[in-house]
Amino acid sequence: MGYAFLVAAPERALLLECGVVDVRASTTAAERLLAISKALDELIRRHRPFVLAVERLYFNKNVQTAMRVSEARGIALLCGARAALEIAEYTPQEVKMSVTGNGRADKKAVQRMLPLLVALDVPITQDNVADAVAIALTHAQRARFADAVAAAT
Amino acid sequence: MGYAFLVAAPERALLLECGVVDVRASTTAAERLLAISKALDELIRRHRPFVLAVERLYFNKNVQTAMRVSEARGIALLCGARAALEIAEYTPQEVKMSVTGNGRADKKAVQRMLPLLVALDVPITQDNVADAVAIALTHAQRARFADAVAAAT
Repeated sequence: MGYAFLVAAPERALLLECGVVDVRASTTAAERLLAISKALDELIRRHRPFVLAVERLYFNKNVQTAMRVSEARGIALLCGARAALEIAEYTPQEVKMSVTGNGRADKKAVQRMLPLLVALDVPITQDNVADAVAIALTHAQRARFADAVAAAT
Repeated sequence: MGYAFLVAAPERALLLECGVVDVRASTTAAERLLAISKALDELIRRHRPFVLAVERLYFNKNVQTAMRVSEARGIALLCGARAALEIAEYTPQEVKMSVTGNGRADKKAVQRMLPLLVALDVPITQDNVADAVAIALTHAQRARFADAVAAAT
Protein backbone atom coordinates (compact mmCIF):
# COMPACT_ATOMS: atom_id res chain seq x y z
CA MET A 1 0.00 0.00 0.00
CA GLY A 2 1.43 3.34 -1.10
CA TYR A 3 1.17 6.44 1.06
CA ALA A 4 2.11 10.12 0.83
CA PHE A 5 1.98 12.98 3.31
CA LEU A 6 1.72 16.43 1.72
CA VAL A 7 1.48 20.00 2.86
CA ALA A 8 -0.71 21.89 0.41
CA ALA A 9 0.61 25.22 -0.83
CA PRO A 10 -0.65 27.81 -3.35
CA GLU A 11 2.19 27.02 -5.76
CA ARG A 12 3.62 23.53 -5.49
CA ALA A 13 2.67 21.20 -2.63
CA LEU A 14 5.42 20.02 -0.31
CA LEU A 15 5.95 16.28 0.00
CA LEU A 16 6.82 15.37 3.59
CA GLU A 17 7.12 11.65 3.15
CA CYS A 18 5.97 8.94 0.81
CA GLY A 19 6.56 5.25 0.41
CA VAL A 20 5.03 1.80 0.42
CA VAL A 21 4.09 -0.14 3.55
CA ASP A 22 6.47 -3.07 3.70
CA VAL A 23 4.43 -6.26 4.07
CA ARG A 24 7.05 -8.68 2.76
CA ALA A 25 7.50 -10.25 6.20
CA SER A 26 3.77 -11.11 6.35
CA THR A 27 2.84 -14.65 5.41
CA THR A 28 -0.92 -14.42 5.98
CA ALA A 29 -3.63 -11.90 5.11
CA ALA A 30 -4.10 -11.10 8.80
CA GLU A 31 -0.36 -10.43 9.29
CA ARG A 32 -0.34 -8.21 6.20
CA LEU A 33 -3.29 -6.18 7.52
CA LEU A 34 -1.69 -5.91 10.96
CA ALA A 35 1.54 -4.62 9.35
CA ILE A 36 -0.46 -2.02 7.38
CA SER A 37 -2.37 -0.97 10.49
CA LYS A 38 0.80 -0.56 12.57
CA ALA A 39 2.60 1.36 9.82
CA LEU A 40 -0.33 3.74 9.20
CA ASP A 41 -0.87 4.35 12.94
CA GLU A 42 2.82 5.22 13.29
CA LEU A 43 2.81 7.51 10.21
CA ILE A 44 -0.34 9.29 11.41
CA ARG A 45 1.15 9.69 14.90
CA ARG A 46 4.31 11.19 13.41
CA HIS A 47 2.82 13.54 10.80
CA ARG A 48 -0.46 14.44 12.56
CA PRO A 49 -2.44 15.01 9.34
CA PHE A 50 -6.01 16.31 9.53
CA VAL A 51 -7.33 14.63 6.41
CA LEU A 52 -7.01 11.13 4.97
CA ALA A 53 -7.71 10.85 1.24
CA VAL A 54 -8.12 7.33 -0.12
CA GLU A 55 -8.90 5.84 -3.48
CA ARG A 56 -12.48 4.77 -4.04
CA LEU A 57 -12.68 1.64 -6.14
CA TYR A 58 -15.78 1.33 -8.26
CA PHE A 59 -14.84 -1.75 -10.12
CA ASN A 60 -12.03 -4.15 -10.63
CA LYS A 61 -12.12 -6.81 -13.31
CA ASN A 62 -10.36 -9.22 -10.99
CA VAL A 63 -12.69 -9.80 -8.03
CA GLN A 64 -9.92 -11.52 -6.03
CA THR A 65 -7.74 -8.42 -6.38
CA ALA A 66 -10.67 -6.13 -5.60
CA MET A 67 -11.34 -8.04 -2.37
CA ARG A 68 -7.69 -8.05 -1.29
CA VAL A 69 -7.33 -4.32 -1.98
CA SER A 70 -10.62 -3.67 -0.15
CA GLU A 71 -9.35 -5.42 2.98
CA ALA A 72 -6.34 -3.08 3.05
CA ARG A 73 -8.52 -0.08 2.20
CA GLY A 74 -10.72 -0.97 5.17
CA ILE A 75 -7.65 -0.86 7.42
CA ALA A 76 -6.69 2.58 6.08
CA LEU A 77 -10.22 3.90 6.71
CA LEU A 78 -10.14 2.42 10.22
CA CYS A 79 -6.78 4.04 11.03
CA GLY A 80 -8.13 7.37 9.78
CA ALA A 81 -11.35 7.04 11.79
CA ARG A 82 -9.47 6.06 14.96
CA ALA A 83 -7.31 9.19 14.60
CA ALA A 84 -10.49 11.26 14.03
CA LEU A 85 -9.25 12.41 10.61
CA GLU A 86 -11.55 13.90 8.03
CA ILE A 87 -11.86 11.24 5.33
CA ALA A 88 -12.16 11.95 1.62
CA GLU A 89 -12.50 9.41 -1.17
CA TYR A 90 -11.72 9.93 -4.83
CA THR A 91 -12.16 7.61 -7.79
CA PRO A 92 -9.19 7.03 -10.13
CA GLN A 93 -11.06 9.12 -12.74
CA GLU A 94 -11.36 12.06 -10.35
CA VAL A 95 -7.65 11.82 -9.53
CA LYS A 96 -6.64 11.73 -13.21
CA MET A 97 -8.91 14.66 -14.00
CA SER A 98 -7.55 16.68 -11.10
CA VAL A 99 -3.87 16.02 -11.82
CA THR A 100 -3.84 16.03 -15.64
CA GLY A 101 -7.15 17.62 -16.65
CA ASN A 102 -8.12 14.38 -18.38
CA GLY A 103 -10.15 11.72 -16.54
CA ARG A 104 -8.87 9.05 -18.92
CA ALA A 105 -5.17 9.88 -18.63
CA ASP A 106 -2.82 6.90 -18.26
CA LYS A 107 -0.44 6.30 -15.34
CA LYS A 108 2.50 7.79 -17.21
CA ALA A 109 0.64 11.03 -17.88
CA VAL A 110 -0.22 11.32 -14.18
CA GLN A 111 3.39 10.63 -13.20
CA ARG A 112 4.73 13.24 -15.63
CA MET A 113 2.57 15.90 -13.95
CA LEU A 114 3.67 15.14 -10.37
CA PRO A 115 7.00 17.04 -10.42
CA LEU A 116 5.14 20.13 -11.65
CA LEU A 117 2.67 19.94 -8.76
CA VAL A 118 4.81 18.68 -5.88
CA ALA A 119 8.31 19.57 -4.78
CA LEU A 120 10.12 16.21 -5.09
CA ASP A 121 13.70 15.58 -3.99
CA VAL A 122 13.86 12.36 -5.97
CA PRO A 123 11.65 11.06 -8.77
CA ILE A 124 8.82 8.74 -7.77
CA THR A 125 9.31 5.42 -9.47
CA GLN A 126 6.66 3.19 -7.88
CA ASP A 127 3.10 3.24 -9.20
CA ASN A 128 1.60 2.81 -5.72
CA VAL A 129 3.49 5.80 -4.41
CA ALA A 130 2.66 7.95 -7.44
CA ASP A 131 -1.01 7.05 -6.92
CA ALA A 132 -0.81 8.09 -3.27
CA VAL A 133 0.80 11.43 -4.13
CA ALA A 134 -1.80 12.03 -6.86
CA ILE A 135 -4.71 11.25 -4.49
CA ALA A 136 -3.32 13.61 -1.84
CA LEU A 137 -2.86 16.32 -4.48
CA THR A 138 -6.42 15.83 -5.67
CA HIS A 139 -7.70 16.48 -2.18
CA ALA A 140 -5.46 19.53 -1.78
CA GLN A 141 -6.81 20.99 -5.05
CA ARG A 142 -10.43 20.28 -4.09
CA ALA A 143 -9.94 21.79 -0.64
CA ARG A 144 -8.33 24.92 -2.15
CA PHE A 145 -11.21 25.26 -4.61
CA ALA A 146 -13.78 24.80 -1.83
CA ASP A 147 -11.99 27.41 0.29
CA ALA A 148 -11.94 29.85 -2.63
CA VAL A 149 -15.66 29.33 -3.25
CA ALA A 150 -16.38 29.79 0.46
CA ALA A 151 -14.29 32.98 0.54
CA ALA A 152 -16.09 34.37 -2.53
CA THR A 153 -19.63 33.76 -1.27
CA MET B 1 -21.36 -8.38 10.64
CA GLY B 2 -22.52 -11.47 12.51
CA TYR B 3 -20.44 -13.08 15.23
CA ALA B 4 -20.62 -16.13 17.49
CA PHE B 5 -18.49 -17.35 20.38
CA LEU B 6 -18.62 -21.09 20.95
CA VAL B 7 -17.06 -23.59 23.31
CA ALA B 8 -16.52 -26.81 21.40
CA ALA B 9 -17.68 -30.01 23.10
CA PRO B 10 -17.76 -33.68 22.09
CA GLU B 11 -21.56 -33.67 21.95
CA ARG B 12 -23.15 -30.33 21.22
CA ALA B 13 -21.11 -27.13 21.25
CA LEU B 14 -22.04 -24.45 23.76
CA LEU B 15 -22.95 -21.03 22.40
CA LEU B 16 -21.59 -18.31 24.70
CA GLU B 17 -22.80 -15.32 22.74
CA CYS B 18 -23.84 -14.41 19.24
CA GLY B 19 -25.20 -11.38 17.50
CA VAL B 20 -24.66 -8.74 14.87
CA VAL B 21 -22.41 -5.73 15.27
CA ASP B 22 -24.68 -2.73 15.33
CA VAL B 23 -23.49 -0.23 12.72
CA ARG B 24 -26.75 1.66 12.31
CA ALA B 25 -25.30 4.81 13.91
CA SER B 26 -22.52 4.88 11.29
CA THR B 27 -23.04 7.22 8.38
CA THR B 28 -19.74 6.60 6.56
CA ALA B 29 -17.71 3.52 5.65
CA ALA B 30 -14.95 4.61 8.03
CA GLU B 31 -17.41 4.97 10.94
CA ARG B 32 -18.88 1.56 10.15
CA LEU B 33 -15.43 -0.05 10.18
CA LEU B 34 -14.51 1.74 13.42
CA ALA B 35 -17.73 0.46 15.03
CA ILE B 36 -16.91 -3.10 13.90
CA SER B 37 -13.36 -2.79 15.19
CA LYS B 38 -14.45 -1.51 18.61
CA ALA B 39 -17.15 -4.17 18.96
CA LEU B 40 -14.83 -7.04 18.00
CA ASP B 41 -12.02 -5.79 20.26
CA GLU B 42 -14.49 -5.66 23.16
CA LEU B 43 -15.93 -9.13 22.40
CA ILE B 44 -12.43 -10.63 22.12
CA ARG B 45 -11.38 -8.94 25.37
CA ARG B 46 -14.44 -10.35 27.13
CA HIS B 47 -14.45 -13.93 25.79
CA ARG B 48 -10.68 -14.41 25.32
CA PRO B 49 -11.01 -16.89 22.42
CA PHE B 50 -7.92 -18.57 21.01
CA VAL B 51 -9.12 -18.95 17.43
CA LEU B 52 -10.88 -16.66 15.01
CA ALA B 53 -12.67 -18.41 12.14
CA VAL B 54 -13.83 -16.19 9.29
CA GLU B 55 -15.56 -16.77 6.00
CA ARG B 56 -13.34 -16.80 2.95
CA LEU B 57 -15.05 -15.25 -0.03
CA TYR B 58 -14.03 -16.61 -3.37
CA PHE B 59 -16.44 -14.76 -5.50
CA ASN B 60 -19.37 -12.44 -5.33
CA LYS B 61 -21.44 -11.54 -8.35
CA ASN B 62 -21.80 -8.00 -7.05
CA VAL B 63 -18.30 -6.50 -6.94
CA GLN B 64 -19.53 -3.53 -4.88
CA THR B 65 -20.85 -5.91 -2.23
CA ALA B 66 -17.68 -8.01 -2.37
CA MET B 67 -15.56 -4.92 -1.74
CA ARG B 68 -17.71 -3.68 1.13
CA VAL B 69 -17.72 -7.11 2.79
CA SER B 70 -13.96 -7.37 2.25
CA GLU B 71 -13.37 -4.10 4.08
CA ALA B 72 -15.20 -5.46 7.12
CA ARG B 73 -13.47 -8.85 6.77
CA GLY B 74 -10.14 -7.01 6.82
CA ILE B 75 -11.12 -5.41 10.14
CA ALA B 76 -12.03 -8.82 11.61
CA LEU B 77 -8.68 -10.27 10.51
CA LEU B 78 -6.88 -7.26 11.98
CA CYS B 79 -8.68 -7.59 15.33
CA GLY B 80 -7.77 -11.28 15.41
CA ALA B 81 -4.14 -10.62 14.52
CA ARG B 82 -3.84 -7.86 17.13
CA ALA B 83 -5.13 -10.27 19.79
CA ALA B 84 -2.66 -12.92 18.54
CA LEU B 85 -5.48 -15.35 17.76
CA GLU B 86 -5.02 -18.33 15.52
CA ILE B 87 -6.91 -17.49 12.34
CA ALA B 88 -8.81 -19.98 10.22
CA GLU B 89 -10.72 -19.30 7.03
CA TYR B 90 -13.46 -21.41 5.50
CA THR B 91 -15.34 -21.01 2.26
CA PRO B 92 -19.15 -21.10 2.33
CA GLN B 93 -18.91 -24.52 0.61
CA GLU B 94 -16.68 -25.87 3.39
CA VAL B 95 -19.09 -24.58 6.02
CA LYS B 96 -22.12 -26.12 4.31
CA MET B 97 -20.30 -29.42 3.91
CA SER B 98 -19.23 -29.45 7.53
CA VAL B 99 -22.62 -28.56 8.99
CA THR B 100 -24.96 -30.47 6.66
CA GLY B 101 -22.74 -32.94 4.82
CA ASN B 102 -23.63 -31.24 1.54
CA GLY B 103 -21.46 -28.45 0.13
CA ARG B 104 -24.39 -27.12 -1.89
CA ALA B 105 -26.91 -26.98 0.95
CA ASP B 106 -29.04 -23.85 1.10
CA LYS B 107 -29.19 -21.43 4.04
CA LYS B 108 -32.33 -23.06 5.43
CA ALA B 109 -30.70 -26.50 5.50
CA VAL B 110 -27.74 -25.05 7.42
CA GLN B 111 -30.05 -23.30 9.87
CA ARG B 112 -32.08 -26.47 10.49
CA MET B 113 -28.89 -28.29 11.53
CA LEU B 114 -27.71 -25.66 14.03
CA PRO B 115 -29.95 -26.66 17.00
CA LEU B 116 -28.68 -30.23 16.64
CA LEU B 117 -25.06 -29.10 16.82
CA VAL B 118 -25.21 -26.20 19.28
CA ALA B 119 -27.08 -25.74 22.54
CA LEU B 120 -29.28 -22.72 21.76
CA ASP B 121 -31.49 -20.96 24.29
CA VAL B 122 -33.40 -19.18 21.56
CA PRO B 123 -33.65 -19.88 17.84
CA ILE B 124 -31.28 -17.96 15.57
CA THR B 125 -33.32 -15.90 13.15
CA GLN B 126 -30.73 -13.72 11.41
CA ASP B 127 -28.77 -15.10 8.45
CA ASN B 128 -25.56 -13.30 9.48
CA VAL B 129 -25.69 -14.82 12.94
CA ALA B 130 -26.49 -18.30 11.63
CA ASP B 131 -23.51 -17.97 9.27
CA ALA B 132 -21.24 -17.00 12.17
CA VAL B 133 -22.39 -19.96 14.29
CA ALA B 134 -21.93 -22.31 11.33
CA ILE B 135 -18.40 -21.04 10.63
CA ALA B 136 -17.41 -21.43 14.29
CA LEU B 137 -18.87 -24.95 14.30
CA THR B 138 -16.94 -25.82 11.16
CA HIS B 139 -13.71 -24.85 12.86
CA ALA B 140 -14.62 -26.83 15.98
CA GLN B 141 -15.31 -29.93 13.87
CA ARG B 142 -12.06 -29.53 11.91
CA ALA B 143 -10.05 -29.02 15.08
CA ARG B 144 -11.63 -32.11 16.69
CA PHE B 145 -10.84 -34.17 13.60
CA ALA B 146 -7.26 -32.87 13.52
CA ASP B 147 -6.85 -33.68 17.22
CA ALA B 148 -8.21 -37.19 16.68
CA VAL B 149 -5.82 -37.77 13.80
CA ALA B 150 -2.93 -36.45 15.87
CA ALA B 151 -3.90 -38.68 18.80
CA ALA B 152 -4.09 -41.73 16.52
CA THR B 153 -0.70 -41.24 14.87
